[in-house]
This record gives sequence, C-alpha cells and structure tokens, in this order.
Amino acid sequence: MDYENLTLHTDKYQINMMYAHWVHGSLNNRAVFEAYFRKLPFGNGYAVFAGLERIIHYIQNLAFDEEDIMYLQQQEEQYQDGFLEELRRFKFTGHIHAAAEGTLVFPNEPLIRVEARVFEAHLLETALLNFMNYQTLIATKASRIKQVAPTETLLEFGTRRAQEADAAIWGARAAYIAGFHATSNLRAGKLFGIPTKGTHAHSWIQDHDTEEESFRKFAEAIPDQVSLLVDTYDSLKSGVPNAIKTARHLEQMGKKIQSIRIDSGDLAYISKQSREMLDDAGLSYVKIIASGDLDENIILNLKAQGSKIDVFGVGTQLITAADQPSLGGVYKLVAREKNGEYEPVIKISGNPDKVSNPGVKEIYRIISRATGKAEADYIALRHEQDILQGQPLDLIDPVHSYRSRTVRDYESVPLLHPIFLDGALAYPLPKLEDIRSYHEEQLQLFWPEYLRKLNPEMFRVNLSREAWELKMELIRKHQG
Amino acid sequence: MDYENLTLHTDKYQINMMYAHWVHGSLNNRAVFEAYFRKLPFGNGYAVFAGLERIIHYIQNLAFDEEDIMYLQQQEEQYQDGFLEELRRFKFTGHIHAAAEGTLVFPNEPLIRVEARVFEAHLLETALLNFMNYQTLIATKASRIKQVAPTETLLEFGTRRAQEADAAIWGARAAYIAGFHATSNLRAGKLFGIPTKGTHAHSWIQDHDTEEESFRKFAEAIPDQVSLLVDTYDSLKSGVPNAIKTARHLEQMGKKIQSIRIDSGDLAYISKQSREMLDDAGLSYVKIIASGDLDENIILNLKAQGSKIDVFGVGTQLITAADQPSLGGVYKLVAREKNGEYEPVIKISGNPDKVSNPGVKEIYRIISRATGKAEADYIALRHEQDILQGQPLDLIDPVHSYRSRTVRDYESVPLLHPIFLDGALAYPLPKLEDIRSYHEEQLQLFWPEYLRKLNPEMFRVNLSREAWELKMELIRKHQG
Repeated sequence: MDYENLTLHTDKYQINMMYAHWVHGSLNNRAVFEAYFRKLPFGNGYAVFAGLERIIHYIQNLAFDEEDIMYLQQQEEQYQDGFLEELRRFKFTGHIHAAAEGTLVFPNEPLIRVEARVFEAHLLETALLNFMNYQTLIATKASRIKQVAPTETLLEFGTRRAQEADAAIWGARAAYIAGFHATSNLRAGKLFGIPTKGTHAHSWIQDHDTEEESFRKFAEAIPDQVSLLVDTYDSLKSGVPNAIKTARHLEQMGKKIQSIRIDSGDLAYISKQSREMLDDAGLSYVKIIASGDLDENIILNLKAQGSKIDVFGVGTQLITAADQPSLGGVYKLVAREKNGEYEPVIKISGNPDKVSNPGVKEIYRIISRATGKAEADYIALRHEQDILQGQPLDLIDPVHSYRSRTVRDYESVPLLHPIFLDGALAYPLPKLEDIRSYHEEQLQLFWPEYLRKLNPEMFRVNLSREAWELKMELIRKHQG
Repeated sequence: MDYENLTLHTDKYQINMMYAHWVHGSLNNRAVFEAYFRKLPFGNGYAVFAGLERIIHYIQNLAFDEEDIMYLQQQEEQYQDGFLEELRRFKFTGHIHAAAEGTLVFPNEPLIRVEARVFEAHLLETALLNFMNYQTLIATKASRIKQVAPTETLLEFGTRRAQEADAAIWGARAAYIAGFHATSNLRAGKLFGIPTKGTHAHSWIQDHDTEEESFRKFAEAIPDQVSLLVDTYDSLKSGVPNAIKTARHLEQMGKKIQSIRIDSGDLAYISKQSREMLDDAGLSYVKIIASGDLDENIILNLKAQGSKIDVFGVGTQLITAADQPSLGGVYKLVAREKNGEYEPVIKISGNPDKVSNPGVKEIYRIISRATGKAEADYIALRHEQDILQGQPLDLIDPVHSYRSRTVRDYESVPLLHPIFLDGALAYPLPKLEDIRSYHEEQLQLFWPEYLRKLNPEMFRVNLSREAWELKMELIRKHQG
C-alpha cells in the first residue's frame, strides 16, 4: 500500500467533473477558484493561516501512477481510454497564490487562489481544503492558548488523542507556528525540526518497588533533563517529597532536576503547595509542569487562582480543537473562461453569509502609517491598482453603513503571494523558525482588542466598491 | 521526508524510559500493558473497536533507520552508543492479543494487551493509542448514525473537513466497518476496497451558462450514474424542474438519472416537495440524496418530519466526531516481571474511575444459550479457566450489589485473540467485508435497549471475584 501518493486523495466527484469536461472538450478552459472560510472558529477574533507547505508538496507530487489509473478503470467502466491517457499526462500547470503561513486571516478573504485549467483546478479542491482546514484550525487554537499564557512554556502533548497520525504531526507543526515551544512527538521533531520534550509515564513508577526508587533511577539515567511525574500515588504526600529527595541526590552528583510534572488533581492548589515545598527545600530552580486536559479556559482560570505553573503541557483539547473540531473552509469558483475571457461567477444562497464574492480578487492589509497598526483588510478585484498607489481609500461597511470611513495615510500590503506560476514553484519555502517569527510580527500589527480570547473586537474586512458592485450585479442577474 | 516510517511516531518520554531501562539493565524485563478506554463517547451504549489492521502494519514495520538514529543522537547527546546500537537492532518480539475489529466493546475492558520486553512495550504506546482511539471513535459515531438510518444508504463525505489526510481515509474505513455503504474518498477506495460515490459540485453548475445546460452536459458525459445537485440557485424553482428535464432527456437516450442531491435549505420540506414533483413527472425511480452538516440527531429529526430522503451524505460531523472528537483510550501497566515472575501492579487515583484493574486479564462475552443474547462481559485473570468450562458464574456488580446475579446456561466467548506471538504475526487479517459482516453479527447479539442512541441501558461488564479481590488488595497495600 502506497500511503504517500496523494493524487487520489480527492472526492470522486472531482474525477467525474474532470471526466465530463474531457467528454465535452472543455477541460482546457481556465477557471479561478478561491479557498476561504466563512466564520472564525472558537469565537476568536482571527485565524492563523497554515497548511501551505503541505499543499505545496502535495501539488509538486501530483501524478496518477499506473495503479491509480487501473483503479479508476475498474471503478468506472464508462471512463474512456482517452480520459485515462489525459490523467497519465496530468501535472499541475497553473498558478497558485496564497497567504504566507502564520498570517492572521479573517472570514471571506481568499487565502488560496487557484488559476488553472478547470480540469486541474477540480482535482485539487479536496486535499487543499483538508490540509488548510485542519492546520489553520490548530494554529488558531494554539494561538488562543498562547494569548493566555504568553510568558509560560507551552508543550504540545496530543499525539495519542490526535485524529490519526497526520493530525498529530501537522498539528504539532501548526502549534509551533503559533508560539508553542516544543512537541512530544519525535517524528514531528525529526520531520520539521521542532524541539521535542518529554518526561516519563506513570508506568515508569509502577514498574519499580517504590516511587522513590523509580525517581532516583530515572534521574541517574538522564541526569541532564530530569522531570519527575509526581501524581502516581499522591502528589503532595508522596510525589513531591520523593522529588525533593531525588533533587538532593542529584545535587550530590553535581546535577539539577529540571522540573516536576502534575498530571491530575487540583492543579492550582497542588502547584502552589508544591512550589512552597520546593522553595522551602531550597529548590526554587525546579520548575512546575502541569498537564491533563488543559485548554485556554482552564489555563486562564489556573492563572487567576494564582497557580504556580511554569510549563503547560497541552494535549487533547489542542490537537483535536475539541470545542470546534473543524474549520468550514470552502473552495469556490469565482471566474470561468468564456470566449477567451474571464467571466466572474457567483454562488447564490438563501443564507446571505453563503453568497460568494465573485471575480478574481486580491487582499490588502491596510496599515496606518501613524500607528503602525492594521486598520482593515481590503478585498479588491485583481485589476484594481489604486490601492497600491496609496490613494484615499473608502472603507465601506456593506451592512452597517454608518461604520464606513476613509483612510488616507496607509501602507497596503498584499497578502497573496505567487506560489506556483505556470506550474513551477515560485516561492522560496520559508524555514519553520521564520514562519514562527513572522507570526509573532503579525500579532504586533493588531491592537490587543482584536486578539483577546473572549468577545474580541471584529477586525474590518471590506470589499472594494467595484467588487461590491459586481456582487450586487450578479445577484440581481440571477434573481431577475 | 519519509512520512511512512512511523517508528519515531512516539512521545519522547517513551525513548527516555527505554533509555533509563537500558542504563539500569532492566530493558529485557517483561511487562504487560493493556489498552482500554474509561468512558463511552457520545452517551452511546457501546463502542465499535477499530484500528487493529493499522496497528498490525505499524508493528510489522517498526525499525529505526539510520536517519532516526542520527536524529536521536543529535537530540540527546547523553544517549550512549550502546543504547543506539540496541535501537538499531530493535524489532518487536513480544505477544499482542486484541479484540477483532468490529467488536462491540465497553469501558475498562482490555482491548489490546501487549506482553513484551518493557523496552519494546514502551515504544508502542503512543501510536497504538493514536490509531485505536481515532478509529474506534469514528466507527462508534458511524454506528450511531446507522442506528437511526438502518435502511437508508449512508455515504461518507468528510475528507475536506477531516483532521488531515490519515483521518480522512482511516475514518472512511471505520465508517464502512460500522455499516456505511461508500465513501467519496478515492484513495480510501483504492487502499481499502471501499465502494466510492460522488455527484458533482456547485462549481460545475456555475461553470455553465445555465443550470439546465450544466445538468444536460453532466448527464450526457456520465449517463450511467447521474446524480444532480439541485440547490445552486433554488432547489424547487430551478434545480428540481431542470433535473426533471434532464431525466426526460436521458430517457430518450435509453438511460435514467439515479438521484438528485439537496445540500442546503430545509431538507425535510424540500425533500418532500421534490419527491412529489419527481413522482408527478413519472420519475419515482429517482432517489433523493441529502447532505450538509448531517449527524444522527438531524437525521432522526428529518425522518420524524416525514422527509423523503433515500441517501444521506455525512461529512464533518462523522469524520471529526464533532460532538466528542477524542476517545480517551489509555495504555496501562498491569503486570511487571519481578524475580522472573509477573507481579500485578495498579495505578491509584483520587478519581475512582481512574484506578486501573491490576493483573493480566482476559475478557469473555457471556451469551445466554436460551436467548442467544449477550448477558454481560466478564473480565477474569488469565489463569482463571472455569469460565471456559461453563460453570455457574457469579456476576457481581461491584458498586450496586443488589444487581448481582448468577448465570448458568451460557457460552463464554473470549474476545482477545492472539495477534502477535513472539513477534510473529499469528492472526490472519480478515477482509474488510468480513469485518463489516462480523460487526453486523455483533449487533445481533445485543438487545436493542443497549443499542439505542439516547439513554441506552448500560451493558454489564464485571470483574471476576479473583480479579476484584486482587484490585482491593493492591489498593489496601498502597494506602497502608
């Protein structure tokens, strides 16, 4: 079984539509699709875009091998040989523009734009959304956790509860982008260069006659990074006293234990008591790690209770984004080739939020020169260039017009970068460390009101007047 | 990047514990770990065990390659060469017993038992839980959906919202085990032999001048499996009338459209109206597919409203198990080698549910000969054999003793099968179709009261008297 070939990692209907285009000779018509989400997850004020590196590898490796072709042939006897021949030749030859990983992004902004033969553009949809949706979701969840614990060390501990293997490693990477410091998953460490951290399990202690013996043996084996799990029997009566003995034993060897870990019980109370016991024993250098079903709300509450926790190990709630385990990203046709030109298209819906924004678009982040802070994102049609010349810009709030205003002294930063041009990679893949730093810089661009966890101010995302009028015109056309 | 080598798909602390065992020369001591979950997900009355095939492949392919060794060496300079040499030689040499995929399972039952050198047993924990937790979760969610739609066709449509690529395909497989009929994911179809289904997207329609033209062209291209998506503009005013025209057009070609698909709006109302319109047009053979954020509750409500839906396409809610996106499966040491013998061990906790069941155990399903139905599951220590001889069996409810009773005329079916013996595969991997049939048979063993979606009766899982007394003894020992 070849798990790595992701070419068939797509919905069957994509192949059916490709086939129908092939039958009708429209396969080479160009089309423009945009990927975006409609609603921010977790009630957060922003999302953190991620998934691009995975998408780039996916597109570079797209190729139907003979096994894939045989499979499709068996599946659908109606597929004609010429179509299968076309699949054998398949490679991506179009353009892709996308936001950089780590960018703060908002609803209804095109995050990835695919401009290609419609035959190619269909194939990509499913996998592209699969990767963008999950990685953006986890980076956003991790960023929320980081907001409430900006000075603490954050460890990603979720592999055993992740939704299968890919989620574990790509989730670890997404968390690292958003400011986590390390992961427990060694494969993620090896593949992506993320620092890894680990202590030991309860079973280590159960596997010895006494907790004290187990601590001492562990410390002697790995004297340079000893973290002792204290809650196997009783954290305050047994675990912490034994950890203190072990620390003293290690000091005699000229070494220091790094930390203790509390994995159950009243983390606020136990951490405070443990801190006191450690300090009283002259072990103020020993840090306290807490783990056990933590999320941003529990961490905020622990801190409000004056808990003494230096390091949070976050597992299930982060790696599954438990309170909202999916981002509803979609991939919508915004323009089709007709008579050699692009015609903008729209998807109508009874639900106003689901009406798509037609036409090929760019996003610009409008940054006030006076404050250095982001004022709004501005979605314009691709041919609109005045935004780049710094001309006064009307920010029209389409629903609440009293909120409309004009900005003058601004920089406009295009958010979509060329990733593939005519099928060739046009984007130097940034290092993970640089993505992480870029994300930190991104946060600096926003007033804290947009970043807070609870009831954040909604950042303004506007359509240009021309994009707005195009949308209205197409709605009228379909309704009339 | 080698994504397929899963040997480092483990938490760093496993390697640290392996190292500490190596340092102290205890690496060859045998240990027994059992994997189980403590609480049923979704308020369901049972879970559907899945993940074993993936775990078997994982264990067969366990090997540290030179890249892995170099990575570990760089990560931890303290790892001595002899340890790395031991890792180079690593292969799994122990025993694994596990339940068959598709088995109905319950809390606190050992589902996988690993008996091996402690050095080996540690490495496995993380990946084994990662696979068991996710696949069991999704099979259970799918089974709930199947319970409310036993006669309808169920399609798994979730890839774009899945938590990365592995979740999409292994989730599709888990859903198929639990009675789904097909998936949209072609890679899952190819890898596992699951039937695949697909219609077309809104973009197909947007990419034509009119909906009618788009339907006609699609139908002409794939005349043998036409399903038409009717909600792009207006289901009842535009989509269904155009689908009817297309059906007539196809009838002239001697073909029939299969179905229409409704993806938004009031599914109950639109399906009923559509059914009437189709029937009035003499198209009673055309089936109705519904999709759009469906789950077992929505499906039950749609049916209660008399909706006319033949096929449900279920995506996000199934593939992410959205209402509870993780199964908290754990892997606990139950016995350790001491002086050449197994000593049972326990993990104590302030929370009674978290106290582990010590000792090496078997599970038996007790089936009444009179009714052919399962009466209880019975967890006994491995050496207890009377259960297999059919002697009268006391089922003791440890918490509510008035519920205790004796069963006499029963069959006892061991649920754990040998999977690996001395590192060699001892289990003929069943075909996926056979797993699916076995799951169906499993359901027949249980009274419907245990299977219902809401407030199911709790199936009885008992410890043998000896296993119970062992647990009490170890609790007293640790408290005394």
